[in-house]
Amino acid sequence: MTHDELENGSVLNLDFTKLRKVANCDADVLPAIAQDAKTGEVLIVGYANQLALDTALECGMATFWSTSRNELWIKGKTSGDYLKIEEIRVNCEQNSILYKVTPAGKGACHTKNKDGVARSGCYYRRITGEGALEFTDPAQV
Amino acid sequence: MTHDELENGSVLNLDFTKLRKVANCDADVLPAIAQDAKTGEVLIVGYANQLALDTALECGMATFWSTSRNELWIKGKTSGDYLKIEEIRVNCEQNSILYKVTPAGKGACHTKNKDGVARSGCYYRRITGEGALEFTDPAQV
Repeated sequence: MTHDELENGSVLNLDFTKLRKVANCDADVLPAIAQDAKTGEVLIVGYANQLALDTALECGMATFWSTSRNELWIKGKTSGDYLKIEEIRVNCEQNSILYKVTPAGKGACHTKNKDGVARSGCYYRRITGEGALEFTDPAQV
Repeated sequence: MTHDELENGSVLNLDFTKLRKVANCDADVLPAIAQDAKTGEVLIVGYANQLALDTALECGMATFWSTSRNELWIKGKTSGDYLKIEEIRVNCEQNSILYKVTPAGKGACHTKNKDGVARSGCYYRRITGEGALEFTDPAQV
């Protein structure tokens, strides 16, 4: 499946091996969710190690550890489209974090709609009753 | 650190080895977030394999794969406090899912506040400027 089919298509093709790959990266990481503090939209799920969390606390921008590139990833730092941290939540068992953020730029997703505008978040498709994918909002297509 | 300190305390003690443990479970899994469809509250993050997703689609309740017990976990099925699925979203890269749910019972978290009431979700504490934890809502303490 091409990147375009994966990201814009209607065929459900989940990568269930994701967390095995994540666990094979160079760092110890836990899930880090970024949520728009105002709208409640879940924007993106990434992974954070201690360095990513420390960096987020220090610079006030949602920060992840890129498990594919094995490097620190201050989301949007270069482009200016960063996610300003309002607060960082921790779950009951202290094995995941939740960044409550205000997007400083446009979309938090790396994909774009047909007009070339970055999508606000990554969860722009739902699973249909037939097991296919469809866009939740025509503006996101 | 005791379970009580971990879940109700003010000391930040994140388990960054979480995803290594997850990856060592018997199933191929990806992150599965449950979010209250109405309030937007992020309730819980778990993990799902193909069976969990198929079960969720079939029975309409948020379903995870318990990576510690290595078994299917239809959240709240026994107690009746299940999370009714409104829709299932998929992220751009198709390596995580988002359950948009309506809680059928009380809290989605296994922890309880001091009055013995289950907390609505797992993210009831934030990290303070001093690197400690504090409750976001006095009613959750």
